[in-house]
Amino acid sequence: MKLSKIVSFLECDFQGNDIEIVGINTLKSAKEDEISFVSNSKYVKYLENTKAAAVIISENLASKLPTDCIPLVTKNPYWSMAELSKYFAPPIEDDTLATPQIGKNCSISPKAEIANGAVIGENCTILAHVYIGAKAVIGHDTILYPSVTIYRDCLVGNNCIIHANTVVGSDGFGFATNEKGEHKKIYQNGKVVIEDEVEIGSNVSIDRAVFGSTLIKKGTRIDNLVQIGHNCEIGEYSVLVSQVGIAGSSKLGRNVVMGGQSATAGHIEIAPFSTFAARSGITNSIKESGKTYAGFPLMGHRQWLKLQAKLARLLK
Amino acid sequence: MKLSKIVSFLECDFQGNDIEIVGINTLKSAKEDEISFVSNSKYVKYLENTKAAAVIISENLASKLPTDCIPLVTKNPYWSMAELSKYFAPPIEDDTLATPQIGKNCSISPKAEIANGAVIGENCTILAHVYIGAKAVIGHDTILYPSVTIYRDCLVGNNCIIHANTVVGSDGFGFATNEKGEHKKIYQNGKVVIEDEVEIGSNVSIDRAVFGSTLIKKGTRIDNLVQIGHNCEIGEYSVLVSQVGIAGSSKLGRNVVMGGQSATAGHIEIAPFSTFAARSGITNSIKESGKTYAGFPLMGHRQWLKLQAKLARLLK
Amino acid sequence: MKLSKIVSFLECDFQGNDIEIVGINTLKSAKEDEISFVSNSKYVKYLENTKAAAVIISENLASKLPTDCIPLVTKNPYWSMAELSKYFAPPIEDDTLATPQIGKNCSISPKAEIANGAVIGENCTILAHVYIGAKAVIGHDTILYPSVTIYRDCLVGNNCIIHANTVVGSDGFGFATNEKGEHKKIYQNGKVVIEDEVEIGSNVSIDRAVFGSTLIKKGTRIDNLVQIGHNCEIGEYSVLVSQVGIAGSSKLGRNVVMGGQSATAGHIEIAPFSTFAARSGITNSIKESGKTYAGFPLMGHRQWLKLQAKLARLLK
Repeated sequence: MKLSKIVSFLECDFQGNDIEIVGINTLKSAKEDEISFVSNSKYVKYLENTKAAAVIISENLASKLPTDCIPLVTKNPYWSMAELSKYFAPPIEDDTLATPQIGKNCSISPKAEIANGAVIGENCTILAHVYIGAKAVIGHDTILYPSVTIYRDCLVGNNCIIHANTVVGSDGFGFATNEKGEHKKIYQNGKVVIEDEVEIGSNVSIDRAVFGSTLIKKGTRIDNLVQIGHNCEIGEYSVLVSQVGIAGSSKLGRNVVMGGQSATAGHIEIAPFSTFAARSGITNSIKESGKTYAGFPLMGHRQWLKLQAKLARLLK
Repeated sequence: MKLSKIVSFLECDFQGNDIEIVGINTLKSAKEDEISFVSNSKYVKYLENTKAAAVIISENLASKLPTDCIPLVTKNPYWSMAELSKYFAPPIEDDTLATPQIGKNCSISPKAEIANGAVIGENCTILAHVYIGAKAVIGHDTILYPSVTIYRDCLVGNNCIIHANTVVGSDGFGFATNEKGEHKKIYQNGKVVIEDEVEIGSNVSIDRAVFGSTLIKKGTRIDNLVQIGHNCEIGEYSVLVSQVGIAGSSKLGRNVVMGGQSATAGHIEIAPFSTFAARSGITNSIKESGKTYAGFPLMGHRQWLKLQAKLARLLK
Repeated sequence: MKLSKIVSFLECDFQGNDIEIVGINTLKSAKEDEISFVSNSKYVKYLENTKAAAVIISENLASKLPTDCIPLVTKNPYWSMAELSKYFAPPIEDDTLATPQIGKNCSISPKAEIANGAVIGENCTILAHVYIGAKAVIGHDTILYPSVTIYRDCLVGNNCIIHANTVVGSDGFGFATNEKGEHKKIYQNGKVVIEDEVEIGSNVSIDRAVFGSTLIKKGTRIDNLVQIGHNCEIGEYSVLVSQVGIAGSSKLGRNVVMGGQSATAGHIEIAPFSTFAARSGITNSIKESGKTYAGFPLMGHRQWLKLQAKLARLLK
């Protein structure tokens, strides 16, 4: 999309060449043909080194951009980005794509729906009422149980098992809010990548990334009714017990174990081999690996036991 | 249904005209051609002004009814109401209804199922394995992702997006229990109304009302795996983060924000612009608007932080 | 499967007759033609009386077996059992089974999928996008709402109602982990049995047993988004409110009431007529029936109220 068209949507001006923009991305990840935005003071530090062709920005910050980066000044850059995201959203389905490509020895129910542009490997079992979206790719030897939904562009590896009614690639929970309290959707134009040998239970929700990928690494085990927000990364061989919630952009190292109903805040990092008791609430990053935690607020598991003993004594 | 037939189901008597009854409703909302019931002392105050044609009631309360309202005296009025609710339940599907009415420019998967009596507006996208029940109405420009289920009679507005495997209109959790501990279903003969510009994530459950409507107002954002009980009302532009639970008959004002895994008790009211931290447990109504809360039991967010600091000191 | 074949999979030896083994089971439940395993010191006491034909066991315990029971010595018996479980897993679907057997007066959507070998009773209503697996049995007068999935071998009783997108019989969360932190799936070769007059909400997950059955007894009421782990037993007329989680192998007596978002640990037993407030966390068995509890850690409900009052005072 030409920059001139973009500024017409955003109702702002620009100076410079009317270049072709192919997508929106973060300041840090944007390439030379992408546009970015800044709406949070935390990210101002990335302004000076961004490679983005143009950045949606408030007037007071525009001077911090590299000289070859075009400022697009608006009053509410986050709202503007939300507005623009719509125009970069691909169609949900696209009949002009090739008919689905299916590997050898698959068993695919005639009551499954495989959209044009999808690719399925060898020896897969796809049961009734499964949906596989446009350009989604399923590896070899993978089993999708009934009513599993894989949204467009998502990747599922080899030797995976996904249980019934699980959703891979629904939109992340993203929107801008204006001063009246109204919301505008931020289209989630990223995807989900599930690596090999992952097993996922029933009624799980894994959201697609706003940009880039939500990533579930090799060998992970996810129980039923788990929520994984957009742009999360779950390390190899991690174990997420039923009803766990991982908020957006959090990153778990390998072999992290989260007990039932435990949850993380967004944008945190958890060291490998960390273990969390049931219903732990993790609001800060965990840097040391191999420890066991409990409680909300989170503390060492032994500390939690000690606190409960103290509270019990309070009752006497 | 004639009153004479109703008393035959309930095994009780009545005095007065054998009038036609069209439904069951609360004491407060019942119209002149409806029947009501009283089973909870909280509602006795509504007896004197009810417009109901007849009320299922225990012997000791019958004298409190208006003179033109017919008492139907039974030992366990709640159980009797449950018994009667079955006879007012419409059929799940009804082939005698008109074939579905579909607006212009819709994209509807041949693998979706639209029941007779349903109405769909213009420019809608209905993906595979969606189910739209009898007399359900979908507005214009709305997207239903795969395996979304909209039960009979439910309404979805314009410009809504509902993600995969979400359920709108499943039965509320209603039953009467007798002295042996056995349960009898209360048929949920109400519906769900979702207003315009609402976006709902994947694997969400929104229950239909027992009478009347469960209501999701304009512009609300609901994340994945959220539970909304029967007869709830969610105010405009509210934000319900993943794994939130709203118990039956609770009412949220506009722009209420509920953090992940937070929950409300039933039958409470929450003032507009209230914000609740993740895992808040709200058991009483909130009357003042614009405040921030945390914890279970609920307290002001700053108080909660202070309490956690005190508890941490207890450990030293 | 001949024992000689089994040892070739497990890369171990055996002495004795090359008998035919029909399945894997616990030490306590294994019959004369089944194989068992021991991997947890808690179960060593069952070694001396096991009827299993052979037991996968570590070298140091082999001498504790009855003389007619064949030891299969491996380094990691749990891992070996996981490896072997794969070979006893029945096919997901089996076209050589009889076409489905459907009772009189059923209403079955042509968009439902009933696998070969399934049996459906009389007067059932099976809506669109339902899946009923191989050898699954549905009783009389039962209603399955859209996108309900019943896995192979599972039983649903008479007069049951299961709401949309609920899953019965997905695999329990079972795997062995080796010293590198890698996981190996334990195939869940058991089933789910749902007795008569049970109503289950939408988006519920009920896992099949690893061996034997997960059991939901007569008249139970289960709300939306509830998790029931493998090998659980839910007593008659129990009430599980929305977002409850019951961890594997726990057993609830009759008329147990669990409030919203409450949960149990695995392998515990709860006495009949116990009541748990919303968000209770039950980590030990409850032996006395008829009491009310709250909190995590769990305590008597009145104690919990007292504790909260003390904490509130701490803030002053």
